[in-house]
Amino acid sequence: MSDTKPKFLEVYSALKSELLDDPAFEFTDDSRQWVERMLDYNVPGGKLNRGLSVIDSYRLLKDGKELCDDELFLACALGWCIEWLQAYFLVLDDIMDGSHTRRGQPCWFRLPQVGLTAVNDGLILRNQIFRILKKHFRGKPYYVDLLDLFNEVEFQTASGQMIDLITTLQGEKDLSKYSLPIHRRIVQYKTAYYSFYLPVACALLMAGENLDNHSDVKNVLVEMGTYFQVQDDFLDCFGDPEVIGKVGTDIEDFKCSWLVVKALERANEEQKKLLYEKYGKTDPACVAKVKELYQTLDIQGAFAEYESKIYEKMTKQIKGHPSKAVQAVLESFLAKIYKRQK
Amino acid sequence: MSDTKPKFLEVYSALKSELLDDPAFEFTDDSRQWVERMLDYNVPGGKLNRGLSVIDSYRLLKDGKELCDDELFLACALGWCIEWLQAYFLVLDDIMDGSHTRRGQPCWFRLPQVGLTAVNDGLILRNQIFRILKKHFRGKPYYVDLLDLFNEVEFQTASGQMIDLITTLQGEKDLSKYSLPIHRRIVQYKTAYYSFYLPVACALLMAGENLDNHSDVKNVLVEMGTYFQVQDDFLDCFGDPEVIGKVGTDIEDFKCSWLVVKALERANEEQKKLLYEKYGKTDPACVAKVKELYQTLDIQGAFAEYESKIYEKMTKQIKGHPSKAVQAVLESFLAKIYKRQK
Repeated sequence: MSDTKPKFLEVYSALKSELLDDPAFEFTDDSRQWVERMLDYNVPGGKLNRGLSVIDSYRLLKDGKELCDDELFLACALGWCIEWLQAYFLVLDDIMDGSHTRRGQPCWFRLPQVGLTAVNDGLILRNQIFRILKKHFRGKPYYVDLLDLFNEVEFQTASGQMIDLITTLQGEKDLSKYSLPIHRRIVQYKTAYYSFYLPVACALLMAGENLDNHSDVKNVLVEMGTYFQVQDDFLDCFGDPEVIGKVGTDIEDFKCSWLVVKALERANEEQKKLLYEKYGKTDPACVAKVKELYQTLDIQGAFAEYESKIYEKMTKQIKGHPSKAVQAVLESFLAKIYKRQK
Repeated sequence: MSDTKPKFLEVYSALKSELLDDPAFEFTDDSRQWVERMLDYNVPGGKLNRGLSVIDSYRLLKDGKELCDDELFLACALGWCIEWLQAYFLVLDDIMDGSHTRRGQPCWFRLPQVGLTAVNDGLILRNQIFRILKKHFRGKPYYVDLLDLFNEVEFQTASGQMIDLITTLQGEKDLSKYSLPIHRRIVQYKTAYYSFYLPVACALLMAGENLDNHSDVKNVLVEMGTYFQVQDDFLDCFGDPEVIGKVGTDIEDFKCSWLVVKALERANEEQKKLLYEKYGKTDPACVAKVKELYQTLDIQGAFAEYESKIYEKMTKQIKGHPSKAVQAVLESFLAKIYKRQK
């Protein structure tokens, strides 16, 4: 909804003020200033899609009924908890990956006065989620379910990140560690749970639902999140940098991309040898050779085939759901991402 | 209790097995092996005092009644959650401080195959606390209080660490930032809450108590934890390395030690100038000058005075507590640390 964003940003300011005034901690002037700066730098700077989708989903679950101020605030607060979770992951992931920029600015840890203090800032971000939940949801019947949900999704995300890290680094650039099942597992845990399942689960809890009754919803959203990442992998190589807003570097970065695991699946011995030689090199000639091989193996065709099959599967799963309201939520998500160009 | 440790270690093995078999995450062989190795390296290697004190406290609260197997297991599990929390903090703190050894072995992140993957391992450690709590305490009436307790104490610890980091690093070796109030705030949040309050709070919750009724207990334990750290600061400089088991380096490391803030309080202009010149240098001649100044300013006398005053204050607070069982817990803690030499 186009009018949600301004309200959503207002709620950020309110939550930030509360955190800077938290009774459980006696700030010094320096530390209060530090936290404020750290929050403004890291939390609200993204597209906010995960956060906004909590409000969108909740609205759909309420069958389009107008939300009262209190409900709207709470939905926004949960949306911000997800953005806070995202900020926590990104601050730490950028340190682990040695990244340079994030959302068009230097990574937080790259700022001279910050450095490895950023590790602790990541923990502060994570802990603030539970301060927000405690302050606004403690009295709700679903409070403990919210805590369990955020804990479980965080656990799954960190676990997915772990597989990604030990597969990439430990393997010392060993392509034989990359396979479709590994790719799927990394993506499912590292991205799908917190990006697709968590926002809808938050909305379901606010709507009084028991998440144990919605494992089918979880399954289709995890499938959707996996598809989203495969698209991300595809666009990194075949998308228009002007449109996607960044220059893709998965090949140079030796990423466990869907493209390379698909290529390994389709390649003959000679082509595998080429991949082992050229993948993960910054030399543009090597990158070009890899992309050429992707063309030869018709990876674009493989992607179109995958997209078509997964769309059919998800549509069937969605239509099979007993609740029209839930169907509306899932269809809305799918429509936002299907055949996206960025 | 001398027979608690073997049982406590047995419970570690049980908890570890459960975690490596967690239904919420599909391990690959590599990742399961990684986590097992990471756990064994980082979790059980300390003195285990925080963990064991949960069982000791719970026994005292039950008026010396024998604990049944189930209760004993649960008390051990909570004790391990605190050791897990400790492991999480230490892994990440060592990265931020650039440390080399911990508990007599290289810091986890210093191992060649590990490096910055250790950041994510820290997060895994933290998340496992909530897997343990969910598995064993979900049905308990105090489950949500346990979650809130661990979240709040973690938040306080990370906040204390933040003040410590920004005071030390940001100040670019600026001694004027060090003061008694700052020192106290760092120590209270960074150490006292999780080392002294958390174990007893866990025991209180198991005993069916409402923590809101025990703010006096929290206050005396935070005071005790603060005293414990002041002792730590004192022993770092004046303790016998053979007895304390390590060579103190707070002066070289420019730490915000109770000794230096006390010295700054007592020093005249010339002595302050000497401190500003010599503190935080690795040159043994500078370290010697600082220690000489501590002697001149009778910092040892100041410590004896502080120790005497705080002991009297805590004893009075303890005796004023209505419950004999709680008094026993607090007296037991105080006895363990009063006038300790290591």
